[in-house]
Amino acid sequence: MKTKELRIGIIGYNFMGRAHSNGWLQAAKFFDLESLPVLQVACGRNGSALRAFADRWHWKHIETDWKKVVERDDVDVIDISLPQHLHAEVALAAAEAGKHIFCEKPMALSSGDAGQMLQAAEKAGIKHYVNHNYRRCPAVRLARRLIDEGKIGRIFHWRGAYQQDWIVDPEFPLTWHLRKETAGTGPHGDLNSHSVDLAHYLVGDVKSVSCLMSNFIKERPLPGEGAATFSAGKSTGPRRTGEVSVEDASLMLVEFANGAVGSFEATRFAPGRKNRNTFEIYGSEGSVAFDLERMNELQYFSRRDPEYAQGFRTILATESSHDYIANWWPPGHTIGYEHTFVHGMVDFINAIDGNRPIAPDFADGLKCIKVLEAGARSAETGQRVAVDSMPALERIAS
Amino acid sequence: MKTKELRIGIIGYNFMGRAHSNGWLQAAKFFDLESLPVLQVACGRNGSALRAFADRWHWKHIETDWKKVVERDDVDVIDISLPQHLHAEVALAAAEAGKHIFCEKPMALSSGDAGQMLQAAEKAGIKHYVNHNYRRCPAVRLARRLIDEGKIGRIFHWRGAYQQDWIVDPEFPLTWHLRKETAGTGPHGDLNSHSVDLAHYLVGDVKSVSCLMSNFIKERPLPGEGAATFSAGKSTGPRRTGEVSVEDASLMLVEFANGAVGSFEATRFAPGRKNRNTFEIYGSEGSVAFDLERMNELQYFSRRDPEYAQGFRTILATESSHDYIANWWPPGHTIGYEHTFVHGMVDFINAIDGNRPIAPDFADGLKCIKVLEAGARSAETGQRVAVDSMPALERIAS
Amino acid sequence: MKTKELRIGIIGYNFMGRAHSNGWLQAAKFFDLESLPVLQVACGRNGSALRAFADRWHWKHIETDWKKVVERDDVDVIDISLPQHLHAEVALAAAEAGKHIFCEKPMALSSGDAGQMLQAAEKAGIKHYVNHNYRRCPAVRLARRLIDEGKIGRIFHWRGAYQQDWIVDPEFPLTWHLRKETAGTGPHGDLNSHSVDLAHYLVGDVKSVSCLMSNFIKERPLPGEGAATFSAGKSTGPRRTGEVSVEDASLMLVEFANGAVGSFEATRFAPGRKNRNTFEIYGSEGSVAFDLERMNELQYFSRRDPEYAQGFRTILATESSHDYIANWWPPGHTIGYEHTFVHGMVDFINAIDGNRPIAPDFADGLKCIKVLEAGARSAETGQRVAVDSMPALERIAS
Amino acid sequence: MKTKELRIGIIGYNFMGRAHSNGWLQAAKFFDLESLPVLQVACGRNGSALRAFADRWHWKHIETDWKKVVERDDVDVIDISLPQHLHAEVALAAAEAGKHIFCEKPMALSSGDAGQMLQAAEKAGIKHYVNHNYRRCPAVRLARRLIDEGKIGRIFHWRGAYQQDWIVDPEFPLTWHLRKETAGTGPHGDLNSHSVDLAHYLVGDVKSVSCLMSNFIKERPLPGEGAATFSAGKSTGPRRTGEVSVEDASLMLVEFANGAVGSFEATRFAPGRKNRNTFEIYGSEGSVAFDLERMNELQYFSRRDPEYAQGFRTILATESSHDYIANWWPPGHTIGYEHTFVHGMVDFINAIDGNRPIAPDFADGLKCIKVLEAGARSAETGQRVAVDSMPALERIAS
Repeated sequence: MKTKELRIGIIGYNFMGRAHSNGWLQAAKFFDLESLPVLQVACGRNGSALRAFADRWHWKHIETDWKKVVERDDVDVIDISLPQHLHAEVALAAAEAGKHIFCEKPMALSSGDAGQMLQAAEKAGIKHYVNHNYRRCPAVRLARRLIDEGKIGRIFHWRGAYQQDWIVDPEFPLTWHLRKETAGTGPHGDLNSHSVDLAHYLVGDVKSVSCLMSNFIKERPLPGEGAATFSAGKSTGPRRTGEVSVEDASLMLVEFANGAVGSFEATRFAPGRKNRNTFEIYGSEGSVAFDLERMNELQYFSRRDPEYAQGFRTILATESSHDYIANWWPPGHTIGYEHTFVHGMVDFINAIDGNRPIAPDFADGLKCIKVLEAGARSAETGQRVAVDSMPALERIAS
Repeated sequence: MKTKELRIGIIGYNFMGRAHSNGWLQAAKFFDLESLPVLQVACGRNGSALRAFADRWHWKHIETDWKKVVERDDVDVIDISLPQHLHAEVALAAAEAGKHIFCEKPMALSSGDAGQMLQAAEKAGIKHYVNHNYRRCPAVRLARRLIDEGKIGRIFHWRGAYQQDWIVDPEFPLTWHLRKETAGTGPHGDLNSHSVDLAHYLVGDVKSVSCLMSNFIKERPLPGEGAATFSAGKSTGPRRTGEVSVEDASLMLVEFANGAVGSFEATRFAPGRKNRNTFEIYGSEGSVAFDLERMNELQYFSRRDPEYAQGFRTILATESSHDYIANWWPPGHTIGYEHTFVHGMVDFINAIDGNRPIAPDFADGLKCIKVLEAGARSAETGQRVAVDSMPALERIAS
Repeated sequence: MKTKELRIGIIGYNFMGRAHSNGWLQAAKFFDLESLPVLQVACGRNGSALRAFADRWHWKHIETDWKKVVERDDVDVIDISLPQHLHAEVALAAAEAGKHIFCEKPMALSSGDAGQMLQAAEKAGIKHYVNHNYRRCPAVRLARRLIDEGKIGRIFHWRGAYQQDWIVDPEFPLTWHLRKETAGTGPHGDLNSHSVDLAHYLVGDVKSVSCLMSNFIKERPLPGEGAATFSAGKSTGPRRTGEVSVEDASLMLVEFANGAVGSFEATRFAPGRKNRNTFEIYGSEGSVAFDLERMNELQYFSRRDPEYAQGFRTILATESSHDYIANWWPPGHTIGYEHTFVHGMVDFINAIDGNRPIAPDFADGLKCIKVLEAGARSAETGQRVAVDSMPALERIAS
Repeated sequence: MKTKELRIGIIGYNFMGRAHSNGWLQAAKFFDLESLPVLQVACGRNGSALRAFADRWHWKHIETDWKKVVERDDVDVIDISLPQHLHAEVALAAAEAGKHIFCEKPMALSSGDAGQMLQAAEKAGIKHYVNHNYRRCPAVRLARRLIDEGKIGRIFHWRGAYQQDWIVDPEFPLTWHLRKETAGTGPHGDLNSHSVDLAHYLVGDVKSVSCLMSNFIKERPLPGEGAATFSAGKSTGPRRTGEVSVEDASLMLVEFANGAVGSFEATRFAPGRKNRNTFEIYGSEGSVAFDLERMNELQYFSRRDPEYAQGFRTILATESSHDYIANWWPPGHTIGYEHTFVHGMVDFINAIDGNRPIAPDFADGLKCIKVLEAGARSAETGQRVAVDSMPALERIAS
């Protein structure tokens, strides 16, 4: 009955490769889609690891050269699951080849790259999506709904933080996340990009930024063999160290175009915060608060409740009245991290099928990077920086 | 201007003596009272400890014989701050002498005693009050208000527990609380009496009880010199032990007259629960939940909120719209344990001045004891016991 | 490389059919298994619904007669995803055919049925498993680990509740869950069975039970066409009602064989509790507490911490040191309801491959039903009932 | 027995006058003091309100001219309970008269004033104290203890906020708190001063500040007769409005001298946050978090717990092992807002009796103001400001 197919070519097979493979598969199981995603080609440089990955997730074909994937006729979507410094080149080629693009975040290393990606995508008329997946938590969607309905009123405050603790140990090695040439930045890009995207989604555009960055541990051991994002790998030979070239923490104060003010904190040095992506929004009519570590919940306060009965409600966003939930389990049955990916895949497929826009797209991704670049500038100069005053940075990451 | 006085005679000067002295003093400072309480006479058996107590709290006179206090012309109120086995005798004499009575909980060792106290008090036409102080947390009053306004609807469930952990250590000594002749019961009387009183206040009368009691530690060291409720005192001489003659935990299931069902748990063996007096109430329109360890908060869920925005609200009961609060501090400034006593004193004084009823009075105290006695019977027999089937127990505690 | 297969035949395709299908598929994706589960045959009575189900989940074959599935040579495991009144007959046939059995909970309508199932399974030498899935929350496993390591010490208290609110509305129709002939009991079997299984797992065997049941709404509209567990279906024609023949709430007090005491509450009448399966365990050395609505967390209190620094820890059971987690996502990335099923499938497959025991098996399921039957007896008589005193109930559910 | 007295002269009888009167009285009731505080003289400009205040709190004498209080021989301590613009003049006179000074916060309108106050106090050799009362929450003291013991390790992050919501309503009138000439600043001085003091106490000195201020509502109705801090008073005649001349919110990022980074937010525009003074501190060994709305609790995370059992502990700081608590009630009995004042009075009296230093004194108060002034400068210029680069501001508030 469902004969339409959407053939995916994925570039990258690590953490994000798994999360995306699972997302495409689960989308078709739990949601009614016009086109069914087909796991067509998986691509990576390490042949045997790629083979194991493709077998496990039932990718039909494999390629070790990403350019070939982009050129294949039997691929409709390029799924970019690579580290950010590799996004731009792949995306430009994919757009040129007329493939839709599902791109991991952050979109690119620089606004220059991001701008080119956007231009290419628009020229090609393809669908383009940046996977800021937390927009698609049902609880976050509920926050947006309350805002859209006027239940928060005029927004005064955004207070956000994205806190982790996986590099507090000084013996944690110098993996690619901690080197400027591969990661561009530390938590400023990795975590603040999520927060800025959420702030854009929920509050609006950022006008100016003051930023403070800090580096707590300047030297770390080099990673051993087989090291991955969150593990040190097996060290062999004598201990060698290298310089941490990205910041360990990034704090920002911002003015929004609509008059609200906001704060952001991104750090990997907050013991006990495993993956706490939290925000509070205060407005003239009410407030909402969210914490990813309790991602099935939204806190909501309404000034319209009778005064003696006002309080922050813990809304369990697990009911069929909440976005996406009716497709999963009965009331009160919680979902987890990976479900946000599935929701992204579902909406992306529906956007293609219905030829409808989807957000966040490359324009949103670019906007996010511009705020982060203004932050980086401010951190260097100590001066508040207007986002509009920033030039587009030019280079293509290699 | 305020020339009316209400002269208090207090019997007992330990933990409750302090809490009551403070209560009478703070009542006059923070609330506008027609009659001002006067700390007239303090009574206790140990002359020097009594002297120190009276000096610290500015009691005008002292007596070492409680009968003399009851007989004094310059005393209007007898404040019974004694262990429960001594309540009845003092209360009967006070009623006969026409004094109003402010009585610590639980009201008496038996429904026989409590019944006589009630009879005597009513015959004398005095005001009588049992200090189940948690009724007077603003958050608990708010629960009652929501129920009275129909916001909870028909009540289905009471789920309560009163949990402490101060005798988990087997070396905690055999103080008076752990001996039947002085305490009557363990947490069944001490803690469940609070919970049953709250259930009466919030849900209604109890019809039947099934009860299970347990004694985890059967033998304990005898207390040293100077031992008090929560401290072991200094032990002298060789270690001697005695038998714990009250239960360590008491669990009850009840049917309420209105069709609701309920559960109670009282224990001193719940590590980490320092003074957790908690209840949940579920009804056809909504729910409330309370925990004394966060006594400034009430949880409230309303089925009348829009479905997608329903959730338990954490109401901070610290606003001027909440009972008693306007007399304390500005919005959001929390109160503590002792404030519940002050509220009791204030309402008691106002009841006398306005010749109005006050609850819980001796009738409420008696009703509470009858439920506990039905529970004790059930624990022995293993059979569900109808509260009405219980005979009044006869003896006066000595 | 992985050529061993474990071929599954599933009977039932509703809520549990989906959850199980997903479980088998995800097990192979996220865990390294010796045998790969193969979705061989799906069985149901409604041919077109079955077809859609099989297509979506990629079941290779379909059957509309469960007996044929049991007899097929190409099936190794019978997965019983049916309402409980149909478990026994299928299980007996499956055992006789030498198939391993993965059985939904509660195991059967009666201890008589369950006993026969156990006997048949043991005689056949197959692996048998009852899917009390909450044992396999990483947070629950952590509770067990703390207990096993002696960190809780001698257990004094179990305080459990399983609370939902999906039938508070009196217009919710009389679905199969609310009729004795199909469901056997209400929340007593549906929810308390989960709680009793957890108590068995964490505390130990139950010795005696006192139970109180209640029925708040006695008459409900008949369900419309297409009604399912949690939805009313489309009503056609004039409104007709029927009698609710199972209890709405069931409360129990129990003695454990090891001297601990416990309480259970199961209800579908607790507004705001969407799927709150919660327990508190208190012991001589510490305490743990769990709430399924925050299933990634375990509360743990240790009396061994320095006195001034003792407190309930909120352990985020999302780290690689927690059971199952290393196979999912990086630290701090939460999982959801369905993951407990995956863990059950993984352990079941490993048990078969390694010829190792797995719990809870039919003996555990039987033990659980015996406690519930003692509870039902107690609810009728008002008397505490010793679990050992209960005769095995004889009938096979039809 | 206790014949030593410490005679207090209080200037101001509003909110802080009550809180201080209560503090002096309770200090003597609950704590063992060498000198007993005597409520000697109360001073205010409105004779009849002053009379009522003195009667209620039993102040022995009254004065309507503060200079007379300062000059009285029968006064040992001047308690400055006035709005901040009046602190400096009174404090200078009190110091000159050789009286000890207990001064409300913030210490003064400017660092110039504060510097003169400090100089005068040191020259006079008196005890001087600024009542940043939240240092004296037992839970905050516990945070300091954990830091002092090395349990937090090297500190990386301070994340603080002080949020209220009492002026969200645009009809809330232009009381003295909202006018620059009386209040100096808005929440920047009123609330951030508390937070900065806590950060100084717990983390250390602040080196630089970036600040962003905002004013959400620029015009408000003039207050009616009898308006006080948190109430609008009765308005008479036609509606008139005035300009809000202080900021509504103030956000800061700071560098600490020890390398930590921090953020602060002070606002009166956070619906639902009634009096939320919250901070999180993250260090190399652990973390602590506090929220004044749950002031009896401290959150503590230790990296030294076994990895699988790490989590934020909710320490109920109500045990006798916690500072001040043994003088109040038994374990688990919570205290409230006003108790922090009592603790301040107790420590102040003990400092005088023992001729020991007490913090925060005028040097600490000055240091706090300097940080706030650097913040105000940064808010104007958009530039990060080094605290040391700020000149002392000169004027004496009139």
